[in-house]
Amino acid sequence: MDRAGALALDAAGPFRSRRDRFLLPDGLVYLDGNSLGALPRGVDERLHAAITQEWGHGLIGSWNDAGWMDLPRRVAGRVGRLVGADAGSVHVGDSTSVLLFKLLVASFGLRPGRRVMVLEPTTFPTDGYVAAGVAELLDVELRWCDPADPAASLDEDVAVLALTHVDFRSGALYDMAALTRAAHEAGALVCWDLCHSTGAMPVDLTAVDADLAVGCGYKYLNGGPGAPAFGYVAPRHHAALRQPITGWMGHAQPFAMTLDYEPAPGAARLASGTPSVLAQTALDAALEVFDDVDLAELRAHSESLTGLFIDLVDARLGDRVGVVTPREPRLRGSQVSLRHDDAYGIVQALIARGVVGDFRTPDVARFGFAPLYVTHADVFDAVQALVEVLDGEEHLRPEYAVRNAVT
Amino acid sequence: MDRAGALALDAAGPFRSRRDRFLLPDGLVYLDGNSLGALPRGVDERLHAAITQEWGHGLIGSWNDAGWMDLPRRVAGRVGRLVGADAGSVHVGDSTSVLLFKLLVASFGLRPGRRVMVLEPTTFPTDGYVAAGVAELLDVELRWCDPADPAASLDEDVAVLALTHVDFRSGALYDMAALTRAAHEAGALVCWDLCHSTGAMPVDLTAVDADLAVGCGYKYLNGGPGAPAFGYVAPRHHAALRQPITGWMGHAQPFAMTLDYEPAPGAARLASGTPSVLAQTALDAALEVFDDVDLAELRAHSESLTGLFIDLVDARLGDRVGVVTPREPRLRGSQVSLRHDDAYGIVQALIARGVVGDFRTPDVARFGFAPLYVTHADVFDAVQALVEVLDGEEHLRPEYAVRNAVT
Repeated sequence: MDRAGALALDAAGPFRSRRDRFLLPDGLVYLDGNSLGALPRGVDERLHAAITQEWGHGLIGSWNDAGWMDLPRRVAGRVGRLVGADAGSVHVGDSTSVLLFKLLVASFGLRPGRRVMVLEPTTFPTDGYVAAGVAELLDVELRWCDPADPAASLDEDVAVLALTHVDFRSGALYDMAALTRAAHEAGALVCWDLCHSTGAMPVDLTAVDADLAVGCGYKYLNGGPGAPAFGYVAPRHHAALRQPITGWMGHAQPFAMTLDYEPAPGAARLASGTPSVLAQTALDAALEVFDDVDLAELRAHSESLTGLFIDLVDARLGDRVGVVTPREPRLRGSQVSLRHDDAYGIVQALIARGVVGDFRTPDVARFGFAPLYVTHADVFDAVQALVEVLDGEEHLRPEYAVRNAVT
Repeated sequence: MDRAGALALDAAGPFRSRRDRFLLPDGLVYLDGNSLGALPRGVDERLHAAITQEWGHGLIGSWNDAGWMDLPRRVAGRVGRLVGADAGSVHVGDSTSVLLFKLLVASFGLRPGRRVMVLEPTTFPTDGYVAAGVAELLDVELRWCDPADPAASLDEDVAVLALTHVDFRSGALYDMAALTRAAHEAGALVCWDLCHSTGAMPVDLTAVDADLAVGCGYKYLNGGPGAPAFGYVAPRHHAALRQPITGWMGHAQPFAMTLDYEPAPGAARLASGTPSVLAQTALDAALEVFDDVDLAELRAHSESLTGLFIDLVDARLGDRVGVVTPREPRLRGSQVSLRHDDAYGIVQALIARGVVGDFRTPDVARFGFAPLYVTHADVFDAVQALVEVLDGEEHLRPEYAVRNAVT
């Protein structure tokens, strides 16, 4: 495979890259869309209009006239299409951490008498921290499972099995349907963290019969830094679910201003305070890029990108790096992680060459292939740069000996 | 007092209106800044740069290079100046509801053995809803006090007295120092909701020895619809305070990605998930308007505006409307509320004339005088319009018989 071959794949594949719908710097190979999605065209204009027209001119009246009251619901509809859910089962707002807190606490209300949450210890740290906080608050047990076999930790005490669909570090992909089934067989709920899958592959919460889910707005959904998160509640739990942060925006009638709290129907009851209209607007505009995307084709493109990256790394670097991510396409998300003692230096040297991945402690170089805008040519260029970095020992430069907080 | 007199007050007063620093529509009398603050000049440009340069061009590197990691702390410093607190005691993020939840739960950890929260029943509804949720979650008591004498409900079971500094409906202002003292004498904490005071008057949490506080970014701080909220933790509670939503951004070292949660120092531990950079940037830019504002002068201007409004209503409308707000300046915030059976129609008819106040169920017409940009001429014009509405019976138009959700 040479660069011309990569270009030919881009031209022939079922899914054409939409890089021209993003404002990516010329020549940049951006493989960190799993950490912060690129800027879709149109977001800047929408925000400008929201600020100057809706806020500046329409002022308070824009809650009705510009549809701000319904904005989270509209965004929920767009997200719902990507995760196999109707708008009434999705809430958009808060952060992933806050929504996960709400759903984990709610899980114990939906499964009274059960006192255990099961998570796996390689989950994204915030999931574990939040679960530990819930365990302390509710005096319940946080049980760590074997990442290779979460179902083995299920029993009649488990209220909820909370797993990340795609592991943030390794890129390994869980079988949602099988693990959801296993949880249900034990009488437990399942709560899926979709941060590293939504927007990069088809997800169908309805088809797998999931109970609860959370996900991120700023990775593959491209909603901007710190974009609102989303939460999912299966219709069968709508009526019974009680989340603990009972703010007015989750009330059935916020402006009735009654003394008693009455939860809104559906997933809208996950809301608490007033949502950021600017952040919701950015996410709404960003999601337009998905309007006519076939998610199966998007996934095929993603598998082709990650497969080509692994093949080229194998062919050109052999055992100079370790491939952490599963080689079987159905077992991985849309990223490939490489292990190397000098992973930090490798990532920094690649960034200096215009190939942006990221480092995850202690020894992982992570490359995300956001299939909306990453091309096979990007993959080829990234591996070429990686070969040159290692050949030239660029990763051993002394300035990379000290690690920054964020990479 | 005629219009020329009002203009003379504007010209002579110690605080000149900064209306020219806001992008308010020409001719609009905007008296709803206590619900949604006006758009400060410069916000649109800052957001454009944040979107296109920081996000679009800088991408993931902007967490370091554009200072996104420190952004909430910088905004906290700006807010801190308005409430008498250092940056390390203020956290900016989430919504008021979520932060109030965190602080109320934390209160019980700071006062172990005590099982009661005291709120007053005319508080903004979300405060009551959130407190009721906390009561259910922790199996503690929510005790409603007499709004005229909150201290009478304090005893040795009370962990926290949670009051709104300025009542959203009546505009009545509590004596923070006296009530904080009363709470402390009972061994309780105090948690002040500053939504309707911060940015309209001096607040000094340090001087009154407050324990905890929350406040709103989108009213008098002009941070835009649904702007991030802020929370305050007195330095003496920094080390002991534990809030329940232990997400990674409240961790001492988010990117160490250790399994165990270790809270960040100071109020930064109130953080949970990744903050919206766009929303934080808008609030940061908006707060620049306060850079050289003397808060005592701002308060004097506010008292002059509300006083003139009450005087003109008394003189020109007599008992055709009821003034709900205390007439004694030191007992009110920066709004004046009028009671009338047709308050909804009055507000709508005024809006049709370009005078924007708002309606609060069941019978209150509320007029906020954001002292940064409201003038004495606005006050005169508002009362003139009110007289004409009532004289012309414009408030009785049939289309105002049905009330909208948001007004």
